[in-house]
Amino acid sequence: MTIHELSPQRSAALTGVIPPVSTPLTPDYEVDTASLTRLVDHLLAGGVDGLFVLGSTSEVAFLPDSHRKIVLDTVTHHVAGQVPVLAGVIDMTALRVLDHARVAVEAGVDGLVATAPFYTRTHPAEIELHFRTIAAQTGLPLYAYDLPVSVHSKLGGDLLLELASDGVLAGVKDSSGDEGALRGVILGRRDRRDIASFSVLTGSELTVETALWMGADGVVPGLGNVDPHGYARLFRAASNGDWEAARAEQERLLQLFELVNVGRPRMGLGSSALGAFKAALYLRGIIDHPTTAVPQIPLNDDEIARVGKYLSASGLL
Amino acid sequence: MTIHELSPQRSAALTGVIPPVSTPLTPDYEVDTASLTRLVDHLLAGGVDGLFVLGSTSEVAFLPDSHRKIVLDTVTHHVAGQVPVLAGVIDMTALRVLDHARVAVEAGVDGLVATAPFYTRTHPAEIELHFRTIAAQTGLPLYAYDLPVSVHSKLGGDLLLELASDGVLAGVKDSSGDEGALRGVILGRRDRRDIASFSVLTGSELTVETALWMGADGVVPGLGNVDPHGYARLFRAASNGDWEAARAEQERLLQLFELVNVGRPRMGLGSSALGAFKAALYLRGIIDHPTTAVPQIPLNDDEIARVGKYLSASGLL
Amino acid sequence: MTIHELSPQRSAALTGVIPPVSTPLTPDYEVDTASLTRLVDHLLAGGVDGLFVLGSTSEVAFLPDSHRKIVLDTVTHHVAGQVPVLAGVIDMTALRVLDHARVAVEAGVDGLVATAPFYTRTHPAEIELHFRTIAAQTGLPLYAYDLPVSVHSKLGGDLLLELASDGVLAGVKDSSGDEGALRGVILGRRDRRDIASFSVLTGSELTVETALWMGADGVVPGLGNVDPHGYARLFRAASNGDWEAARAEQERLLQLFELVNVGRPRMGLGSSALGAFKAALYLRGIIDHPTTAVPQIPLNDDEIARVGKYLSASGLL
Amino acid sequence: MTIHELSPQRSAALTGVIPPVSTPLTPDYEVDTASLTRLVDHLLAGGVDGLFVLGSTSEVAFLPDSHRKIVLDTVTHHVAGQVPVLAGVIDMTALRVLDHARVAVEAGVDGLVATAPFYTRTHPAEIELHFRTIAAQTGLPLYAYDLPVSVHSKLGGDLLLELASDGVLAGVKDSSGDEGALRGVILGRRDRRDIASFSVLTGSELTVETALWMGADGVVPGLGNVDPHGYARLFRAASNGDWEAARAEQERLLQLFELVNVGRPRMGLGSSALGAFKAALYLRGIIDHPTTAVPQIPLNDDEIARVGKYLSASGLL
Repeated sequence: MTIHELSPQRSAALTGVIPPVSTPLTPDYEVDTASLTRLVDHLLAGGVDGLFVLGSTSEVAFLPDSHRKIVLDTVTHHVAGQVPVLAGVIDMTALRVLDHARVAVEAGVDGLVATAPFYTRTHPAEIELHFRTIAAQTGLPLYAYDLPVSVHSKLGGDLLLELASDGVLAGVKDSSGDEGALRGVILGRRDRRDIASFSVLTGSELTVETALWMGADGVVPGLGNVDPHGYARLFRAASNGDWEAARAEQERLLQLFELVNVGRPRMGLGSSALGAFKAALYLRGIIDHPTTAVPQIPLNDDEIARVGKYLSASGLL
Repeated sequence: MTIHELSPQRSAALTGVIPPVSTPLTPDYEVDTASLTRLVDHLLAGGVDGLFVLGSTSEVAFLPDSHRKIVLDTVTHHVAGQVPVLAGVIDMTALRVLDHARVAVEAGVDGLVATAPFYTRTHPAEIELHFRTIAAQTGLPLYAYDLPVSVHSKLGGDLLLELASDGVLAGVKDSSGDEGALRGVILGRRDRRDIASFSVLTGSELTVETALWMGADGVVPGLGNVDPHGYARLFRAASNGDWEAARAEQERLLQLFELVNVGRPRMGLGSSALGAFKAALYLRGIIDHPTTAVPQIPLNDDEIARVGKYLSASGLL
Repeated sequence: MTIHELSPQRSAALTGVIPPVSTPLTPDYEVDTASLTRLVDHLLAGGVDGLFVLGSTSEVAFLPDSHRKIVLDTVTHHVAGQVPVLAGVIDMTALRVLDHARVAVEAGVDGLVATAPFYTRTHPAEIELHFRTIAAQTGLPLYAYDLPVSVHSKLGGDLLLELASDGVLAGVKDSSGDEGALRGVILGRRDRRDIASFSVLTGSELTVETALWMGADGVVPGLGNVDPHGYARLFRAASNGDWEAARAEQERLLQLFELVNVGRPRMGLGSSALGAFKAALYLRGIIDHPTTAVPQIPLNDDEIARVGKYLSASGLL
Repeated sequence: MTIHELSPQRSAALTGVIPPVSTPLTPDYEVDTASLTRLVDHLLAGGVDGLFVLGSTSEVAFLPDSHRKIVLDTVTHHVAGQVPVLAGVIDMTALRVLDHARVAVEAGVDGLVATAPFYTRTHPAEIELHFRTIAAQTGLPLYAYDLPVSVHSKLGGDLLLELASDGVLAGVKDSSGDEGALRGVILGRRDRRDIASFSVLTGSELTVETALWMGADGVVPGLGNVDPHGYARLFRAASNGDWEAARAEQERLLQLFELVNVGRPRMGLGSSALGAFKAALYLRGIIDHPTTAVPQIPLNDDEIARVGKYLSASGLL
């Protein structure tokens, strides 16, 4: 997929496995660009169809703007058009999002990913204006990131379809966990020729083959950092109609996903999951440090060892 | 109060009326610095004891970094030490907060105000590390901003007192609405000589004299933009022990506060309240435009007219 | 399926389509037993595998105990063992639940369905004790009803599996909407011979064939009142491995399900959905009155007419 | 205050200290009526102005209907009109509430206390109809119980005032913790002669003298079981305009209130608080057993001992 295909005139939706790329850090919290490029190579070798940098799994909420820019420049330069690169432009409201968008556009990304407003008490009319404002000021495809656990509002299916129809949104990454609503969007799209290229991507690690079965176009799995080959196999199997193989792969990945809990309840699920992904990449030799950004609580040696056991059980170590 | 008094060696807590300063905008969403300095003069003339810029009422969630810097520079330059200026350094987590803190320190503010982490799913241990990280990197007094409606966690009283005792926090702005917990912090402070200078400020517009009665040191009222004289009278009356006068003033202000609802339910409470404060300042001739930042829904003429009626009823127009 | 098969020594899990049976009312809010038996006949003719009376869709939260007893007696007597009848024993905590359980046991039901405690601020240890207490006092299979939208807590997968292993729970009706967690329970069961008969039922109307694909045993669809034949076809197709037919049926039912919104936002989703189900049954000639219990807001004529259009579009009128 | 005064024609609002009466249980979870009458005597001797049975503090959510009836009969018979007795009629929706109301009326209570609907997803129009339905079917004064932590909705001030004006509600027990909204109701009442007798009672243990200062009529403190004399002194001091004495009493009670946390985090706040109140009554020799109803987790000996230390520190043991 090229930038042209991602443009408003594109005829094809973004599809496949597009992992949210972890952001390797040095022990003093700088972006570890050598590890980052190795991680990108690992993902590309794993067969992913695109990369999503600066998402929640990338610790975007923890990265200063200077770090964000390094990530954007490093990844777009290294990928060099092999696959599309989407950039999270995560901030509280439209004007702040637009500042991030300008940096991302300069870095040469292929699409932008924005959530609904957060921190402020928002409202459906304001969510709509938020996305319209962002889209009007950027020339790139805009993907809505539906993430109620972080922004404390849910994007309505009717709003998504309307914004798709108006050319505001190129797609949605649905991390809401509401599979019934996801299905409503997929069926709502089916009936309208004008939004055939609207991409519906699930953010779930655990219900990927069923989302694809429902008609979703792809998946943005945090666990895809750890096992991109697994998600790529899953997607290929589903694309080939071999649903049983897809299911078997998904069930293996579900058991692997249990590693996200190694730090609980000593820390929050965020610290535990992001720390476990990085510990896994560290144990697999892909990144140099399992460091997560402050103020996340780091996994201790015992917890990291338990991550290793999950990797072994899944044949990854 | 001088910067010196606000330093870790200070002997006096921050006290009095410290309104969160609205951020006047031009119709194309630039900071209207002429209106901003008039607003500062209006507040100082009203008898306030400090200024809190870049808080929620200041639309901090909507302001790009460049706007934030203009606000900081404009206000610190104009105030020139007449009263302490606190700066909100509102962002998702510590490293991003520290970027804002550096700009605020350079502008010459007297203290910093930070919330718990948001967007990320946080945890008490991470909240503690967040505040410790920020305080360790900045030389200014740090105030915790307890705002569950925005950040979706509540700061525990024990944590606040521990961070006070460790010199991490200089005070708290409590916008949680939990007056029982607020009282627990006030009484917890009373017993400890080492944290006598820890400032407890209420963010409520509606229970100010009772918070002062309980032992709070001051108030950070959004409505104080519209009627600083009223809150200053309230605080003076309370300080003089004339609680009945304080109550009468509070009750008048409570009725004035109803203006925050003029836009409901056509928009969210945020848009309605911030729009109403600005409409009131516009109608009173203090700022040039009632503009609020996108994607907030603007008040229409009818709603602005209703704001005017509240002002008239309260003797402000 | 007989009571014996549902007993702790049973070898087969409860499977298939087990709709939560609407409770027809007369205009003065008495149980309309004639309509109720017609509804039961309609469901049995539709090919359902069991009946769940006194669930949320049955308006159990609105029915006095005397109404609950009439429903239990009417349905068990009329069904006379043709299919298993499960009874909701919905109340705040264990001792109150046990009172309902005694009435249900006397009526001759085949299993009981209970939620976690609600109204009270509960805790995982208390949820566990709640289910253990109920199971210890009743001789019938006990199903956990996972319904966070009503009880404001989520049943953990580990707890469910432990209670299954200890013979406390015979199954779960998952209305949490968390398909990833549902899948974790299904896979957790697969590895343990001792809980092979633990039933996993989805409460979703919209993701039934995918839940069955994941390994769920059945579905408890509110919409199954309106179109039992559709859900029975869906389940049979899935059981026969004809997943494309199951998906087509599910997609038709998803479009029919839109009728739940006809009353919004004039009323809550509860009133609108339960009112729409009853309006559909009324329009289809199965029940005599579309009455819902106070204080639900009744659908008006226009809204009922719109329900009719959904039925027509789905070939049900 | 007599029943007549509480009738719709009453001229005086309910005022003073009206504790929610704990429900003593035997070790096998029966109502311990001997302990209950001793507790009533203890409260009357403490100088309370009324009794509220079957509230949240009474473990109403845990009591079967037969227990509820025993409590009603025991207390009304023992009080014999010395003070008004209000009865909680806590259940999910109106028809179920009315069943409890009938039993309470027969027992001879002086007023009823009902929450908004719960378990069901409710709506403001349904909350209004709920209270109107209950009031229309009972001849007793009806008090709204505003308890968002249990019912997950907040009663709006405008609705309360409208229902007061229409004769539906005789008062409100505000346990929402939203003191600004409470104040709005108090001021809204002040302007209307027709609702002068509408009682505003705070359910907070910690902000009583400030609520009275704002104009509240009384308090319904769970901690009042443990120390009724303290709350009675607080109320008398406030009534006499000796606000400093009232504050000193409140501050002592706030420190005593810390006992509610002795069981945390091993159990929920409900179990811990209700267990601590009962442990205190047990240690003070007023009730025979500290038993709380299943599935609450009981305090262990160490936790009970810590309750004793709080009592000693407050001069109650």
